[in-house]
Amino acid sequence: MKFASHDLAREIPLLMHDDRQFPMDPERRAIARRIYSGIRDLPIISPHGHTNPVWFSENKSFPNPTELLITPDHYVFRMLMSQGIPLEEMGISTHKASSSADPKQVWRIFASHYYLFRGTPSRIWLDWIFFNVFGLKVLLNAGNADFYYETIDQKLRCDDFRPRALYERFNIEVLTTTEGPLDRLETHDVIRRSGWGGRILTAYRPDNVTDPESDGFADNLRAFGIVADEDLSTFDSYRRAHCKRRLFFKQHGATSTDHGHPDAFTADLSLDDTRSLYLKILNGNFAPSDARLFRGQMLTEMAGMSVEDGLVMQLHPGVSRNHNLEVYQKFGTDMGGDIPVAGEYVNNLKPLLNRWGNDPRLTFIVFTVDETTFSRELAPLAGHYPALRLGPPWWYLDSPAGMLRFRAAVTETAGFYNTVGFNDDTRAFLSIPARHDVARRADSTYLATLVGEHMLHEAEAHEVAHQLTYELVKSAYKL
Amino acid sequence: MKFASHDLAREIPLLMHDDRQFPMDPERRAIARRIYSGIRDLPIISPHGHTNPVWFSENKSFPNPTELLITPDHYVFRMLMSQGIPLEEMGISTHKASSSADPKQVWRIFASHYYLFRGTPSRIWLDWIFFNVFGLKVLLNAGNADFYYETIDQKLRCDDFRPRALYERFNIEVLTTTEGPLDRLETHDVIRRSGWGGRILTAYRPDNVTDPESDGFADNLRAFGIVADEDLSTFDSYRRAHCKRRLFFKQHGATSTDHGHPDAFTADLSLDDTRSLYLKILNGNFAPSDARLFRGQMLTEMAGMSVEDGLVMQLHPGVSRNHNLEVYQKFGTDMGGDIPVAGEYVNNLKPLLNRWGNDPRLTFIVFTVDETTFSRELAPLAGHYPALRLGPPWWYLDSPAGMLRFRAAVTETAGFYNTVGFNDDTRAFLSIPARHDVARRADSTYLATLVGEHMLHEAEAHEVAHQLTYELVKSAYKL
Amino acid sequence: MKFASHDLAREIPLLMHDDRQFPMDPERRAIARRIYSGIRDLPIISPHGHTNPVWFSENKSFPNPTELLITPDHYVFRMLMSQGIPLEEMGISTHKASSSADPKQVWRIFASHYYLFRGTPSRIWLDWIFFNVFGLKVLLNAGNADFYYETIDQKLRCDDFRPRALYERFNIEVLTTTEGPLDRLETHDVIRRSGWGGRILTAYRPDNVTDPESDGFADNLRAFGIVADEDLSTFDSYRRAHCKRRLFFKQHGATSTDHGHPDAFTADLSLDDTRSLYLKILNGNFAPSDARLFRGQMLTEMAGMSVEDGLVMQLHPGVSRNHNLEVYQKFGTDMGGDIPVAGEYVNNLKPLLNRWGNDPRLTFIVFTVDETTFSRELAPLAGHYPALRLGPPWWYLDSPAGMLRFRAAVTETAGFYNTVGFNDDTRAFLSIPARHDVARRADSTYLATLVGEHMLHEAEAHEVAHQLTYELVKSAYKL
Repeated sequence: MKFASHDLAREIPLLMHDDRQFPMDPERRAIARRIYSGIRDLPIISPHGHTNPVWFSENKSFPNPTELLITPDHYVFRMLMSQGIPLEEMGISTHKASSSADPKQVWRIFASHYYLFRGTPSRIWLDWIFFNVFGLKVLLNAGNADFYYETIDQKLRCDDFRPRALYERFNIEVLTTTEGPLDRLETHDVIRRSGWGGRILTAYRPDNVTDPESDGFADNLRAFGIVADEDLSTFDSYRRAHCKRRLFFKQHGATSTDHGHPDAFTADLSLDDTRSLYLKILNGNFAPSDARLFRGQMLTEMAGMSVEDGLVMQLHPGVSRNHNLEVYQKFGTDMGGDIPVAGEYVNNLKPLLNRWGNDPRLTFIVFTVDETTFSRELAPLAGHYPALRLGPPWWYLDSPAGMLRFRAAVTETAGFYNTVGFNDDTRAFLSIPARHDVARRADSTYLATLVGEHMLHEAEAHEVAHQLTYELVKSAYKL
Repeated sequence: MKFASHDLAREIPLLMHDDRQFPMDPERRAIARRIYSGIRDLPIISPHGHTNPVWFSENKSFPNPTELLITPDHYVFRMLMSQGIPLEEMGISTHKASSSADPKQVWRIFASHYYLFRGTPSRIWLDWIFFNVFGLKVLLNAGNADFYYETIDQKLRCDDFRPRALYERFNIEVLTTTEGPLDRLETHDVIRRSGWGGRILTAYRPDNVTDPESDGFADNLRAFGIVADEDLSTFDSYRRAHCKRRLFFKQHGATSTDHGHPDAFTADLSLDDTRSLYLKILNGNFAPSDARLFRGQMLTEMAGMSVEDGLVMQLHPGVSRNHNLEVYQKFGTDMGGDIPVAGEYVNNLKPLLNRWGNDPRLTFIVFTVDETTFSRELAPLAGHYPALRLGPPWWYLDSPAGMLRFRAAVTETAGFYNTVGFNDDTRAFLSIPARHDVARRADSTYLATLVGEHMLHEAEAHEVAHQLTYELVKSAYKL
Repeated sequence: MKFASHDLAREIPLLMHDDRQFPMDPERRAIARRIYSGIRDLPIISPHGHTNPVWFSENKSFPNPTELLITPDHYVFRMLMSQGIPLEEMGISTHKASSSADPKQVWRIFASHYYLFRGTPSRIWLDWIFFNVFGLKVLLNAGNADFYYETIDQKLRCDDFRPRALYERFNIEVLTTTEGPLDRLETHDVIRRSGWGGRILTAYRPDNVTDPESDGFADNLRAFGIVADEDLSTFDSYRRAHCKRRLFFKQHGATSTDHGHPDAFTADLSLDDTRSLYLKILNGNFAPSDARLFRGQMLTEMAGMSVEDGLVMQLHPGVSRNHNLEVYQKFGTDMGGDIPVAGEYVNNLKPLLNRWGNDPRLTFIVFTVDETTFSRELAPLAGHYPALRLGPPWWYLDSPAGMLRFRAAVTETAGFYNTVGFNDDTRAFLSIPARHDVARRADSTYLATLVGEHMLHEAEAHEVAHQLTYELVKSAYKL
């Protein structure tokens, strides 16, 4: 049962008010404006995300509006899918065949359903891009779909809409991508050798060789041995391979690792038990509980390696990936079918934290998509353990209201200084400034309330805002 | 330990301010007023509830204030019970004996404890009824209990306070009741044949023949076979019986089914396994885990039948019914002792959604009484699966603040168009307009904030408000 | 990775605005002020906490600022620890050795990290103490650390900064401490016999003889037998010992018991099964599941004893104690490493509530550190069972925003009258008035919103505020 698409009768301007997101009562709004004015123009530090480094090594033009803004953005196409538009019609390629959908036709479908994004952060990000990057002035709708498409398409062919130019225009100071251990980082080499001034870093994300249940694990392990020049016949060799690859990544600019796990489970086995477990995994003769134990043990191992080599460790747990089997089998991963599950951190993180949580050499940044854990588990843990820091509101919570709920749930227990500023965590490059702007406005609003309710001096709020936007990110990620 | 009852020294007027529930800051309140003014007089669409169809077939006067407003309303008497008033004194009948309490005396107890409802939605609903239906002007208290009773009692004897007159006065366009599969819908037939213009629909609620652990299951199954003209000796016959009864309900105007389960667990067994499981259930020789599996399988079966016959499917899970054993044994069900438990939807709904969730012919509306699942599980699921829609905040969450929390938790991920407007879900007929008014005011407030914070145009907000109040309900429920 | 400490360049005044915590929009703020003005000067009823009765029996001066405000307050030192300051440097003694840290040096560390408390309730409480108790006017920072230390240190030597003088100055009417069953309450005797007018009560907290997994359980049991003059060889004797000690506590002024459990699990075994279980426990030959069962059974036993002797029963469940093993082993308990876990009350409390929940002689006050249970489980339970009352927001939730979330989550279902006013639950004596003030301001704000949104008359709000601050506490705790 679908609700018919529709548009307001008349064209209405794009929303890009200076006071957007700010509270309405005049006193509070005035404070928020003042706080925001101190941070709005700070450079963007993007310490975690999924942009494609090839954009910056090749610096080619983006192909067209649809392939830039729709087909790679699961926030966008999952919403249209949820209202009955098949992914094929949105230009998504299947495993078997590249999409044959006409990009302009896809854009028209998107435009005529743009009302679906009312009240969502995607609307904010997209409007920001349309207005600030492409100079559009009227809200997207079915009637102006072609005008939008052509305007954007033309601009994309100009040199100042290529990736490097946009990076500069966006005032980005650092942008971190994410690569697997099998990656030889040649793309990053090209960027560095190019002489271009942009700072594109990598991060070490070893899930495909630490999760025995990941697709192609055995193949990945073989490739891992080759790239690390280890035979991997023992856990010691396997661990050494990680140390080597981490060092390689660090030498190529990485300051962090990242770990995407089904949950936050960690383990702290004896070395003997770890060695036996590894052999079981290596032989492919393991139960799901062995796989889980191995993943959990590897988190603690990674924390230990971080203590040694200084890479900041990130954990992104708690998502049931590829929930929609039909979509997964037909279209693959990252199709909008990744759904959060209830989180548990207190017992799950205990082994790792009891092993490494008091070590001042470790920075361990934890994320959640279950906001109930903010006040109940994560803020109390971060307000105690020296190694632990809280990542910003992640994924479904990366929104104006989600960010305010995060600060409201976390600050009273963990303060501001056990958080690490903002991550955009996106593959949608053009949305990065919009996302950071949303975070800056949300933090300004949160702080304005503390100031207006006389719980913080405005001078302190200005300082905190600056730190959340800039210093805390750089220090937490060692940038 | 009870807190002594008491009343304010002087009489104070009933609260029925035009701006009730609206935010106080003048700018935002002004926007909320404007949005609300566009929807306040729209007809009421009540697509799910528990009013008694006999009221409309017989159109008799309601007996007296107590039997109209107190004894059938567990929201009311549970609150008095929680403060030490025994249910017997509230006029609640036991299994053994009808209540001998004097209705006027019950009313006096209620009146002298009316302060207990401060801050609750019951207070809002009741004040609305007192003011708008019965023309009372002063807040209920011990001193005016008899005046209230007599005023209401007299009016109830007038023709324009009979059910059909109230239905019309309330500007109800559709009102759906809920009946079990054993019901021959004779009452609904009488209503339809009466020539009265009211539209009273039924909904198919088969729990008493799909839940092997429900009271009288074996008897119900026998009756089900008779009413459906099936021997029920096999699963195929049992399934056919459902198809027939659903068709019968559909022919009598039903557009939906409803399912009240202890949790959201679903299963997708092979046909052979389903057949074996059914025989186990039929023979009464089953474990609790079999009963659970059967309930879960039947949800998936019902989704399949909905794909065939087009009935919209509703799921109301997650309540621990009859928690208070003594009260249950003495007074029966629906005594205010139904308590929400933590919900889990991601894994529980997976079998059903993987079987039917991508089918555009299915509309599957899911409710929760665990608000933590709104942002974590339900909004992400509804923002992905074409078949899934989110029901409005249910039961304990059906309140001004509950509704705002629902929109705040859901909208940023699922938008507005994966929700289905408002359900009153009540057996308290007179409270229906009040409940819909609360929802309209809550939505107006939520939208006013988006507008005032420059995240939505006011013209868009007017359109969305209209859709949430009217179009989305009608389209989601195929009315 | 630590963030460098720092201070604002100039000195800024201590924040002690009359409108602190109040909403900013002028209409709502004005109502909040009026409500607050009716309760701000009411005496403090502190029915549950952990102050040391020796302070009041001996009435000695507090030793110095550090030992008064830092080393006993895990809210304070855990925050500094979380940012890399070792507990040793904060003056915390280990099991092996008393701290040799210079109190003045500890104070300097604290002062130079005071910015960490921005946005936390500790900041509010401490600023209140600095301003109102010690007359300081400028925000604490590294530059004025010594001035602060000396000012406070000097005042502490004056007679009017001794415990009894502060008790009187704080306008405390009742202050309840917590003692174990082995305590002979001699300190409380001394207070009572001293002729001093302060009312210091005890509460019966038997965890060390009801939790078979607590440290020193066997020794405690032996001492329990001696103090109660029972041989404890049977459950009947053990139960009698509790009855005797409860009576002894009651004779010394106790009106309540308190129970700190890992979760809210209760059991209702037959007497025979209880007797057998007890013998297993007594012999030390038990599994963890037996220990859990015994704890759960003892809660139901305690409820039964409360029905007999009238002591109000409190349950504080759901904290994973001593999560940080290294810190626990080195420094002991209450070191800031106690972390909330997800709560479950519906199934866990069912045995106890089905046994005693409908008995009007029982008052059972339940707390939580998992705020998701407020609206989902606790408010529905408290809005039904006559014996059940909800304790105020506890521990990590005892903060301006936490209190507002509590009222928002609870009131619509349970109303105000199934809550019991405020508990400070603190061992930080000087913070007690600040904590009660925070609660009064939060309740005033919550009520102001109801009034301003026309859902409650202001006259009603004044009455409710008074009751939440004073009458409900006294009646719930039988004071």
